[in-house]
Amino acid sequence: MSFIWLNGAFLAEDAPALRAQDRGPLLADGVFDTCLAVNGAPEHGPAHFARLARHAALLEIPLPGFDLIAAAQELLARTGLATSRAVIRTTLTRGPGPRGLAPPPEARPTLLMQAAPAPDPATLAPATAIIARATRRNEHSPLSRIKSLNYGDNILAAQEAQKRGAREAILLNTQGNAACAAAANIFIREGAHLFTPPSADGAMDGITRAALLAAGKAREETIPEERLREADAIYLTSSLLGIRQLYRLEDKTYEECALP
Amino acid sequence: MSFIWLNGAFLAEDAPALRAQDRGPLLADGVFDTCLAVNGAPEHGPAHFARLARHAALLEIPLPGFDLIAAAQELLARTGLATSRAVIRTTLTRGPGPRGLAPPPEARPTLLMQAAPAPDPATLAPATAIIARATRRNEHSPLSRIKSLNYGDNILAAQEAQKRGAREAILLNTQGNAACAAAANIFIREGAHLFTPPSADGAMDGITRAALLAAGKAREETIPEERLREADAIYLTSSLLGIRQLYRLEDKTYEECALP
Repeated sequence: MSFIWLNGAFLAEDAPALRAQDRGPLLADGVFDTCLAVNGAPEHGPAHFARLARHAALLEIPLPGFDLIAAAQELLARTGLATSRAVIRTTLTRGPGPRGLAPPPEARPTLLMQAAPAPDPATLAPATAIIARATRRNEHSPLSRIKSLNYGDNILAAQEAQKRGAREAILLNTQGNAACAAAANIFIREGAHLFTPPSADGAMDGITRAALLAAGKAREETIPEERLREADAIYLTSSLLGIRQLYRLEDKTYEECALP
Repeated sequence: MSFIWLNGAFLAEDAPALRAQDRGPLLADGVFDTCLAVNGAPEHGPAHFARLARHAALLEIPLPGFDLIAAAQELLARTGLATSRAVIRTTLTRGPGPRGLAPPPEARPTLLMQAAPAPDPATLAPATAIIARATRRNEHSPLSRIKSLNYGDNILAAQEAQKRGAREAILLNTQGNAACAAAANIFIREGAHLFTPPSADGAMDGITRAALLAAGKAREETIPEERLREADAIYLTSSLLGIRQLYRLEDKTYEECALP
């Protein structure tokens, strides 16, 4: 039997866990985090959980005071994932509330943690992507900059990628500038320089993205669709898969080329 | 003890109901409906559940074949709401899936129905609204036209209304044209004419809105913010509260004025 962690307790993975009155399932009122763990240790765990708190604060959802690193470690041990690559998904919702949209004056948040085996990027097929036509990312919404539960547009883009034979989809924002991929941030290489869309263009606040920017390896710049298509190389970054070069975008294939 | 209806069974309202692997709570992968019931009978029930199926089809989520009118009636009876005004909330998610964004090849959807007492619009304080500045509605996304679970922007707008002392918030789309309110569609009156934003501008496909359009009482037209502010009257429509005139938008108050 496998387990999930819910508000400090371990439950059987298949048992009903969330109440129907919870504003997470009802209204996507919450945020989440996806963190890689290797041999039982969450990678950049403090950065991940600090970001979760920051994104929750933007929605005015308090993050309960659990030791999330310890919870993740215990969950990995109990699920038999402490000696391999695993992904920790942490979900925070505003919890139950009375009917209606306005948040209750005092939130009783729901905090959920799940663990699953993580793929080894070295064993994956080459990364391919389309440019999503089914939807756009709304850079006018603060939700475009955080990892909120509102993943409907990302799902539409991922569905489109699946139908068009690619593994990922790059979302343009409402101005037609690149924002991010459905499940990753994006970087483009032009000669010796690396650029990534600014958060004002709808780029999610990714941990790997932030690390590359903080290390001075890349700069934020608006990337119109044409510039994206003309780049020398495109990279996807995510906590789960690290930095992966795109082998193909739409009909264009790329030479293998390390980060500048 | 009160009840909810879940995939054909009645459960105690406070019991955990949803699995943690459900793509509804994890990714807002689903749609919902809110329907008024008076004395045990859902109003325009067939139109509501047909719309739920239509919106689900847009996301390629199959609607399980339950008799939802009968389910609603039995739920109202069991919750003691069959002799008053009640709201029926029906939630459909794609159900559980493996990790990742791409939907599983065969969905096992989750269908949830909840009932709660509904307010009588005659007893409510006058309707007031702001124009939301915190976020915009993304008319480039098909989600803007359906009642998906992705209500994050609506919540941000409702939170802003609450802080600025109003009951509702009107969302502009990314072009600055009016789309809808956080929990209602909008209509404006100009002389003897009634207009509502077209679905291409991000208007949700509301049942009351559709009825007014089908009856030839209103026309769809793009409504820039200035035109919204200059209207002779503004009406909110929703299945729950019917047609309500705004008493105040931002600093402007309106004379009481029936629909043309």
